[in-house]
Amino acid sequence: MPLLIRGGTVVNHDHSRRADVLIHGETIAAVATAIEAPAGSAIIDAGGCYVMPGGIDPHTHLEMPFMGTVTADDFESGTKAALTGGTTMVVDHCLPDPGQSLLSAYQDWRRKSEVAAADYGFHMAVTSWSKQIHDEMETVVKTYGINTFKHFMAYKGALMVNDDELYNSFARCAGLGAMPLVHAENGDIVARMQEAMMARGVTGPEGHAYSRPPEVEGEATNRAIMIADMTGTPLYVVHTSCREAHEAIARARAAGKRVYGEPLIQHLLLDAREYASKDWNHSAQRVMSPPFRDKVHQDSLWAGLQAGSLQVVATDHCAFTTEQKRFGLDDFRKIPNGTGGLEDRMPLLWTAGVGTGRLTKEEFVAVTSANIARILNIYPRKGAVATGSDADLVVWDPAATKAIRASTQFSRIDYNVFEGFTCTGAPAITLSRGKIAWKDGDLRAGKGDGRYIERPAFPPV
Amino acid sequence: MPLLIRGGTVVNHDHSRRADVLIHGETIAAVATAIEAPAGSAIIDAGGCYVMPGGIDPHTHLEMPFMGTVTADDFESGTKAALTGGTTMVVDHCLPDPGQSLLSAYQDWRRKSEVAAADYGFHMAVTSWSKQIHDEMETVVKTYGINTFKHFMAYKGALMVNDDELYNSFARCAGLGAMPLVHAENGDIVARMQEAMMARGVTGPEGHAYSRPPEVEGEATNRAIMIADMTGTPLYVVHTSCREAHEAIARARAAGKRVYGEPLIQHLLLDAREYASKDWNHSAQRVMSPPFRDKVHQDSLWAGLQAGSLQVVATDHCAFTTEQKRFGLDDFRKIPNGTGGLEDRMPLLWTAGVGTGRLTKEEFVAVTSANIARILNIYPRKGAVATGSDADLVVWDPAATKAIRASTQFSRIDYNVFEGFTCTGAPAITLSRGKIAWKDGDLRAGKGDGRYIERPAFPPV
Amino acid sequence: MPLLIRGGTVVNHDHSRRADVLIHGETIAAVATAIEAPAGSAIIDAGGCYVMPGGIDPHTHLEMPFMGTVTADDFESGTKAALTGGTTMVVDHCLPDPGQSLLSAYQDWRRKSEVAAADYGFHMAVTSWSKQIHDEMETVVKTYGINTFKHFMAYKGALMVNDDELYNSFARCAGLGAMPLVHAENGDIVARMQEAMMARGVTGPEGHAYSRPPEVEGEATNRAIMIADMTGTPLYVVHTSCREAHEAIARARAAGKRVYGEPLIQHLLLDAREYASKDWNHSAQRVMSPPFRDKVHQDSLWAGLQAGSLQVVATDHCAFTTEQKRFGLDDFRKIPNGTGGLEDRMPLLWTAGVGTGRLTKEEFVAVTSANIARILNIYPRKGAVATGSDADLVVWDPAATKAIRASTQFSRIDYNVFEGFTCTGAPAITLSRGKIAWKDGDLRAGKGDGRYIERPAFPPV
Amino acid sequence: MPLLIRGGTVVNHDHSRRADVLIHGETIAAVATAIEAPAGSAIIDAGGCYVMPGGIDPHTHLEMPFMGTVTADDFESGTKAALTGGTTMVVDHCLPDPGQSLLSAYQDWRRKSEVAAADYGFHMAVTSWSKQIHDEMETVVKTYGINTFKHFMAYKGALMVNDDELYNSFARCAGLGAMPLVHAENGDIVARMQEAMMARGVTGPEGHAYSRPPEVEGEATNRAIMIADMTGTPLYVVHTSCREAHEAIARARAAGKRVYGEPLIQHLLLDAREYASKDWNHSAQRVMSPPFRDKVHQDSLWAGLQAGSLQVVATDHCAFTTEQKRFGLDDFRKIPNGTGGLEDRMPLLWTAGVGTGRLTKEEFVAVTSANIARILNIYPRKGAVATGSDADLVVWDPAATKAIRASTQFSRIDYNVFEGFTCTGAPAITLSRGKIAWKDGDLRAGKGDGRYIERPAFPPV
Ligand SMILES: [Zn+2]
Ligand SMILES: [Zn+2]
Ligand SMILES: [Zn+2]
Ligand SMILES: [Zn+2]
Ligand SMILES: [Zn+2]
Ligand SMILES: [Zn+2]
Ligand SMILES: [Zn+2]
Ligand SMILES: [Zn+2]
Repeated sequence: MPLLIRGGTVVNHDHSRRADVLIHGETIAAVATAIEAPAGSAIIDAGGCYVMPGGIDPHTHLEMPFMGTVTADDFESGTKAALTGGTTMVVDHCLPDPGQSLLSAYQDWRRKSEVAAADYGFHMAVTSWSKQIHDEMETVVKTYGINTFKHFMAYKGALMVNDDELYNSFARCAGLGAMPLVHAENGDIVARMQEAMMARGVTGPEGHAYSRPPEVEGEATNRAIMIADMTGTPLYVVHTSCREAHEAIARARAAGKRVYGEPLIQHLLLDAREYASKDWNHSAQRVMSPPFRDKVHQDSLWAGLQAGSLQVVATDHCAFTTEQKRFGLDDFRKIPNGTGGLEDRMPLLWTAGVGTGRLTKEEFVAVTSANIARILNIYPRKGAVATGSDADLVVWDPAATKAIRASTQFSRIDYNVFEGFTCTGAPAITLSRGKIAWKDGDLRAGKGDGRYIERPAFPPV
Repeated sequence: MPLLIRGGTVVNHDHSRRADVLIHGETIAAVATAIEAPAGSAIIDAGGCYVMPGGIDPHTHLEMPFMGTVTADDFESGTKAALTGGTTMVVDHCLPDPGQSLLSAYQDWRRKSEVAAADYGFHMAVTSWSKQIHDEMETVVKTYGINTFKHFMAYKGALMVNDDELYNSFARCAGLGAMPLVHAENGDIVARMQEAMMARGVTGPEGHAYSRPPEVEGEATNRAIMIADMTGTPLYVVHTSCREAHEAIARARAAGKRVYGEPLIQHLLLDAREYASKDWNHSAQRVMSPPFRDKVHQDSLWAGLQAGSLQVVATDHCAFTTEQKRFGLDDFRKIPNGTGGLEDRMPLLWTAGVGTGRLTKEEFVAVTSANIARILNIYPRKGAVATGSDADLVVWDPAATKAIRASTQFSRIDYNVFEGFTCTGAPAITLSRGKIAWKDGDLRAGKGDGRYIERPAFPPV
Repeated sequence: MPLLIRGGTVVNHDHSRRADVLIHGETIAAVATAIEAPAGSAIIDAGGCYVMPGGIDPHTHLEMPFMGTVTADDFESGTKAALTGGTTMVVDHCLPDPGQSLLSAYQDWRRKSEVAAADYGFHMAVTSWSKQIHDEMETVVKTYGINTFKHFMAYKGALMVNDDELYNSFARCAGLGAMPLVHAENGDIVARMQEAMMARGVTGPEGHAYSRPPEVEGEATNRAIMIADMTGTPLYVVHTSCREAHEAIARARAAGKRVYGEPLIQHLLLDAREYASKDWNHSAQRVMSPPFRDKVHQDSLWAGLQAGSLQVVATDHCAFTTEQKRFGLDDFRKIPNGTGGLEDRMPLLWTAGVGTGRLTKEEFVAVTSANIARILNIYPRKGAVATGSDADLVVWDPAATKAIRASTQFSRIDYNVFEGFTCTGAPAITLSRGKIAWKDGDLRAGKGDGRYIERPAFPPV
Repeated sequence: MPLLIRGGTVVNHDHSRRADVLIHGETIAAVATAIEAPAGSAIIDAGGCYVMPGGIDPHTHLEMPFMGTVTADDFESGTKAALTGGTTMVVDHCLPDPGQSLLSAYQDWRRKSEVAAADYGFHMAVTSWSKQIHDEMETVVKTYGINTFKHFMAYKGALMVNDDELYNSFARCAGLGAMPLVHAENGDIVARMQEAMMARGVTGPEGHAYSRPPEVEGEATNRAIMIADMTGTPLYVVHTSCREAHEAIARARAAGKRVYGEPLIQHLLLDAREYASKDWNHSAQRVMSPPFRDKVHQDSLWAGLQAGSLQVVATDHCAFTTEQKRFGLDDFRKIPNGTGGLEDRMPLLWTAGVGTGRLTKEEFVAVTSANIARILNIYPRKGAVATGSDADLVVWDPAATKAIRASTQFSRIDYNVFEGFTCTGAPAITLSRGKIAWKDGDLRAGKGDGRYIERPAFPPV
């Protein structure tokens, strides 16, 4: 049955116009003014609304084992939360255990992700280096459709890789037409700063923030850029949270290098004062890496989105319950790192970005879907309202308001770091490959409705 | 008769793909893989070629009175030259005489432009300030479809306006939803430096360059940005030729300001050594403002195009014959300022940009048409290969070579500043609103085939 | 009678050490450890104290006619206030009336300054341009011993000069071995912004700040630097108050240009929240140009002093009583611009700079005297504790505290913008050319004790 | 016997003046105009000359075992070469063998240095980390008078330390009032780049340069600065050779951090074209780390010296004969790294710096001695022409010319990287602690005349 979205304003990353959108099956069949409804069409009235590409969140951790526990949202609850907020695709991290084959890790993640209610893809993590990993990377790219490899410059003794390993893996990426991603913090220095904090008796969540200052992220970002440059590969820096990191990226781009930066909605809106709470739970719930920063860094991130030196807004959705957070009651180093956001990213960014005049609505589409799809090489299948694209769409009501409350959220955790924020601008309807996934509070997408999205390699460097 | 362009790769600013393009009348009717040719279609075989939006040159001066003479190319010869090089639209400058009404100047320019063979629009120059100009600007925007006003910060005693006038005009632009453009050089300082050069006996073309150093352009650019910021309007800086000017723009953008920069193909490829020629004619032919710069500035401009801190590549096509140049034989201040380029911009930029790996082909489209169309508010009517867009297209043969020679050019001047350059990558066919305007050396577009393109205002600030 | 300062630590801009200082007449005769007191010596016990060069304030306006009134402090009260705070020399501004000869203005200022209690020199203002001014500048430099010329880029319709005039005067400075100074704000834009504020009904002191934002100062600073560069002269930027201006200076210096910046103690310590006061008097008392800035600018200024991209801390002491301020009750444009500070600069800077670890004590000496003396070409006669230098000294007690209160100050105005600040570190004794000018609250220097200090020209460029 | 230097112009880092200099024994007894010669004085006529502090070279490697051989100049030949060029003190590197105690290494170096003809001090290298090293550092500082510790971020598998070790050592420095020094290149990446070069068959000296690009140095500099900042210590970056490294330092300084940079005379004057020589010997003789850079980097370094963002000019004198260089005939990785310069630094810098107007003569003194002495905490004992300072002086004849030729040099190597340079400005006489060490081609200083100079700790952070 064809579906016609009528009367809205179609917003793409480069242009907006009044137009109707006709969907056949999973795909957009036409975008034009005044489309005649084919016989038997269902009709969605988008009057007063924007019709935009569904959001893509390029950075999630669903059902991920980490620091001795497992993230609270799995692929089902996570993607359902996403859909309610207008996000129709996530890119999660496939994280091999120490010594585990990349191929086997991939199989594990495919298994876990079968319950997903929205589309998804993977980044593959490289957490050590060996001939086996070198060889398996080819299969990951060519057979599994993964064109990005994630590297952790922090989490010493666990996920961290050193410069030699980064060089090797980046060079391999260059040869395969894949792109490296980095979590950029200097793990050696973080470890020493953590020790110093503990030695001074600073054991609470504020110690987490003190031991990971912006300088430590800025340095690692700068270093990863140099290494990527030496191997000739572009680079994607996840969760760019501070001025120093942003400036390292901007400097590289100003020299013609192909480097991308991804601020999180958390870092755009929340700041380090959260760790000054008297309530351990409050602060611990907000423990993530990088931590929230002083306000001055937010200005830098917003300006980066405006100037184009930062391209993507993500969530690093990595949800742990308060109970899980309490593993670190006596030692901040044991608090599982991560916060939620999948459900809230789109309305929050609209409110704080478009609502304030900082971003145009086209830029909103760019940083929540189109740029991501382009960088991850799935555009315009995803990220565009265009003939032939997947009908992953959000009918966005700029007048709708949404109060963020843990008590009504879909995510499985018991709090929300944005508790009390009120958004103006929210999805009225989310469509996933042509089907209404969510409408007016009614979640229709089901477990397993999501599909794995292969992402083709770039031409090798 | 429908026209089908078959077998090519369609390149837009954000994506490329194998697709056919179907044209009905003046408009693109479909872009899709394997389009069935409608009955009676003409067919163009684009195998091995790229099908791209026709180039837009946002900066020309056709049949313009200047420094006591008139530019050698008029709207007919200029737009024909453009079409042979893949450029399907120009935006020219409507330049009122001292004291002349903007409205009357507009009429003059419409008259001159009736002979145009390709589409065109206008920027309106504001060369002084008065209540009348303030009032007429509204008509220019609302009735004439001109959403850009040009300001000269140089040419003291002629076109130059001072900071007070800039503020007034920029503020008026903000209120009307128009955007100011600036020629950014400090005219007071240029005048003094010229005097100093003449006083030292430096009367040749090299004196032109010495009296307009990069610092003088960088300063004016920085100043115009501040004034635009105070009035709340975006700003477009024409012929950004040097690192200092580019850095002023980049700094502004890094602070979230909406500022655009336009390098010329000349400044990307030619440098100040041209003025060291023993041959007065050679040097004088290359006299333009800003002058060619040292090589280091080229690196900055290219990096700006890569990073997105510069958005547009233009020509400032303003052609004077050697004979005209010789007015300034004894005094470089009297050499008419300007060079050509309309015919050569696209093949040169492809060769030096895409051919070297500095730009992707999508970026080529962005800086030669799509960004321009977006900034000038005519996208996607112009600047896109998309259903509903004007069928201004170029079938680009990446294997074609073109040697640039004055002896074979369409422009009416007797030399070419790119004489001897050989391009790899050139148009096989240029289409203007669905008609073949140029094909394999055969110019089919005729006098008067061009149409005036109105550009709607932006929402006022 | 010889005077021996015994037991202190001598602090110079480049080194500190335990040493005694022997003074013969007006001059330092020896600096050495354990100087034997000559027969008949007076002895000052400097135990626990620092013995430093007396402060030099390079920016004051004593008995200056401005905006229809005259500053409240004359050369007597001003220099007395200075001495109580450890400042032993001021450089004031000789400000010709419109059309007045520079030579005649100089004579006027020499007459007014006869009452000075401390040493002083002049900057000569160039507020228009003519053959006469060009010629008189030579006399000013060669006969009057003034090697600096002040230029106002703001105060449109009064003191302001345009770019053409700046170029002419800067070029003349270059030829004479003099250095230009600039008050850097874009006066055209300020005037328009003031109008805009008044038009919106913003008539109070906050309108003063709103109409002179940092961008306007940054732009003018950048412009003055370019003009100085074109003429080949170094440049001194007075009252650098914001990040934008500092960055323009730092950029120039990073390119090897000789540019100096002078933050005021006011801008280092006070911020724009002062203008939010409900009390008109409070805000109006703080009206000066440039106005106080947001906190972020203070960080930039302090970092500049640390890095050496800013060299001098001054006051721009230009004191008007509340009564005088009230001329602008209905129109902020009529509030006389200026605040005090002569008396407080040294203790405040010590407290906020050395006391916090931001500056070393050697850097304190550098920015309060030695750098100034070097830049103004009177070093080491002034600015050094060295054999042969004028015995302008301050015996500084780092443990002394001083509460700043209008009720006890020497300046003639009825308020103090630093009211309520408490300083730790203050002068115990100030010596002016070998005589105790101030000691423990007892002002001994008398009217007329000051001497005019000629400053020789630099080698011409 | 007193010694009177008469008739010269005394140049210090902050001021110059006509003055005589009286020396008693090893020390300057007076600096004044027209000093009466004491009975029995020897007299030096310095008419037409500058009397400056002797140069200090803070970076040498005399008799150093490295890459399987030993540097060709020992403390005798090296310091003699230094004295002939106006350098009166060197600071060499005490380099423990793997596993060797710092204390024992110190004793070895003291033994080797007994033959020195000029004064000298040491930096102590930290090439690994252990409890023993931590503990010994205290003795090194407090007993041996060494307040600087050198760290190598390159030379993987040999001297290199990782970030964890850097943090530990820097933190220890902070506690002891010592300052860390870094050789800043990313050794991991260099090693991989070297492999890549060899794999491509690039085995000659040009491979050395290709594998150590500026980006690799810039990155390490940026990283070292961050680590120093985290531990609260200032930082000294040796042999800053490129724009990227300089900009990292300048950024840090602009944020108020205390970071110092040391360009070498080689990098200021020589560029990467040297490695393009067809003559293997020529290129190999110039192999040092960092390698010579493209011309654009020289501009950055000179501007840094002018702006004060770089403070010191050194040589990294580390001389290997051509024969020694030939160890690496088939593999550039085996070419011993290092070049000479001790003898030539002062005349070369005067010629290229003061002679061209880039530096004032006071700045020349600053960067060749006074700044170094201040940073190393031996000012004004060294680095000043002042009463009480060591009489390490150079009588500098600005009119003297010196042609640099290996055939006439004092250094023991068989070539000179500056061969063929002609200097204008050279020492007429060098004095070492009051004795004429070199005069008009006659070397009078003898083996063992030099003395070890202890350098006191700074106050701990
Ligand atoms: Zn992460
Ligand atoms: Zn993550
Ligand atoms: Zn122009
Ligand atoms: Zn033009
Ligand atoms: Zn002022
Ligand atoms: Zn003033
Ligand atoms: Zn080294
Ligand atoms: Zn070395």
